Amino acid sequence: MAETTAFTPPPGAFTVTRPIRFSHSDPAGIVYYPNYFDMMNGVVEDWFGQELRLDFVGLIMGRRHGMPIVHAECDFKVPSRFGDRLAFTLLVAKLGRASLAYRIVGHANGTLRLEARIVTVMIALDTGASVAIPDELRRPIEDYQRRTGAA
Amino acid sequence: MAETTAFTPPPGAFTVTRPIRFSHSDPAGIVYYPNYFDMMNGVVEDWFGQELRLDFVGLIMGRRHGMPIVHAECDFKVPSRFGDRLAFTLLVAKLGRASLAYRIVGHANGTLRLEARIVTVMIALDTGASVAIPDELRRPIEDYQRRTGAA
Amino acid sequence: MAETTAFTPPPGAFTVTRPIRFSHSDPAGIVYYPNYFDMMNGVVEDWFGQELRLDFVGLIMGRRHGMPIVHAECDFKVPSRFGDRLAFTLLVAKLGRASLAYRIVGHANGTLRLEARIVTVMIALDTGASVAIPDELRRPIEDYQRRTGAA
Amino acid sequence: MAETTAFTPPPGAFTVTRPIRFSHSDPAGIVYYPNYFDMMNGVVEDWFGQELRLDFVGLIMGRRHGMPIVHAECDFKVPSRFGDRLAFTLLVAKLGRASLAYRIVGHANGTLRLEARIVTVMIALDTGASVAIPDELRRPIEDYQRRTGAA
Repeated sequence: MAETTAFTPPPGAFTVTRPIRFSHSDPAGIVYYPNYFDMMNGVVEDWFGQELRLDFVGLIMGRRHGMPIVHAECDFKVPSRFGDRLAFTLLVAKLGRASLAYRIVGHANGTLRLEARIVTVMIALDTGASVAIPDELRRPIEDYQRRTGAA
Repeated sequence: MAETTAFTPPPGAFTVTRPIRFSHSDPAGIVYYPNYFDMMNGVVEDWFGQELRLDFVGLIMGRRHGMPIVHAECDFKVPSRFGDRLAFTLLVAKLGRASLAYRIVGHANGTLRLEARIVTVMIALDTGASVAIPDELRRPIEDYQRRTGAA
Repeated sequence: MAETTAFTPPPGAFTVTRPIRFSHSDPAGIVYYPNYFDMMNGVVEDWFGQELRLDFVGLIMGRRHGMPIVHAECDFKVPSRFGDRLAFTLLVAKLGRASLAYRIVGHANGTLRLEARIVTVMIALDTGASVAIPDELRRPIEDYQRRTGAA
Repeated sequence: MAETTAFTPPPGAFTVTRPIRFSHSDPAGIVYYPNYFDMMNGVVEDWFGQELRLDFVGLIMGRRHGMPIVHAECDFKVPSRFGDRLAFTLLVAKLGRASLAYRIVGHANGTLRLEARIVTVMIALDTGASVAIPDELRRPIEDYQRRTGAA
């Protein structure tokens, strides 16, 4: 938790800011880390709705598809506390046939606080089998990846 | 989410079983993944108290020390649902001067469901600087590591 | 938060004990109150399975029924902290045609810490309409109510 | 969960809107009720910061004061689902010497969905004793109460 790393979002990258709440924090006064994963899940939802302009509920759940997380990892570099405002920048790390990997960076005042890699796979809810990400979803993700550069 | 992996805890390894609750699950009927990290945090607490017979509150918080998580990662192989009982086995992956890495495996009926690596660092709460893990804690962890084998 | 109230569970009452975890607590060091409601939801699940010996998943969800909470209230008398063990005693306050009200008391060392009233209504998930609580469920609840006395 | 109740916030009342997230919802597809209490805790924080323009962290925690919840209750009238947007309107129900009671109404499209009453007491963290709400806090709360009418 010593040296800090600068972070500037790439041009065009989707960034949302979240207040760190009393409820996010633990008795040591810093955010309890599972809450970061919960916040990042909301960041992905906002990216779908606000950036890609896609209706997640209709597009995914309406088809009886799901996007479970198959891998999640995060480095927590600098702690955050109640009263802070933490920005999250979402980048697409890898788009496969059925899988999608995000890189999500949490930052404040130009300093990186945490950095996550989340991998999700599209499945059919009824069978659990992976299914190809449909084109209505694939195309806007590719566009986003193109305009924000490699993650 | 296709092929399954067998898992048998090493002899002497600390294993606790948790009921999967309604509240752990999401609208797709499977556990919302940040809840696994929360459950594993409780597994570590139980390992301290029940296996190592150490008083975490007194030993750590009483000294104004903390053990923030600096890295967490997990592969989610097989989903769990409300009504399941999920066993968690904790192994010590690496014990450093100030850092401690756990390998935690979630399993049911001999099948691996998830596998996590959690790295924590002991710090002084007042300065945030890392501090050496005190001997009262280090010794029982080394003993545990020895009797359960390499993680 | 001054005077304390003694509490002894009625004979035969279902009581489960929960460790208060680091994650339950807030920066002031006491349990963040929504976590009590979450814990009590688990207490109700355990009462179904361990005391009434009913399969909630099969009996309720298998019929496409649900039991949403329509009212919840709680008095928080004495705070709880990480390291405490909190016992919860569940009593049936009122069993109606479709509704069921619990009184749940949280206590430690003979002292009442919190006291909740939770009202749930059985509904058909597909219509949202209330449905009569089926006899397989009603009878064990009535038995429990009889042997533990009025709540 | 049958008839609906109209709700229009009183003029000048503080209202914030929250997206209902995937993570808020349970396997029956509706919000798991402890999450409403968590959301309302955030609404109170936003009211402090955005409406009263008070620094909760400095004003309360900086003085080693706390505002634990001593009573919380809520009627859940209409369920909310992933993808909904739920507005919360905060009204001051009662301001005592050390206590403060909120009425918080959750609504969407002019219809009341839930209605809560939350009572908090200001205490000194070190002793747990109740302390008078300081004037810097009392005055803006009284002003708010005056301009939004009786709750």
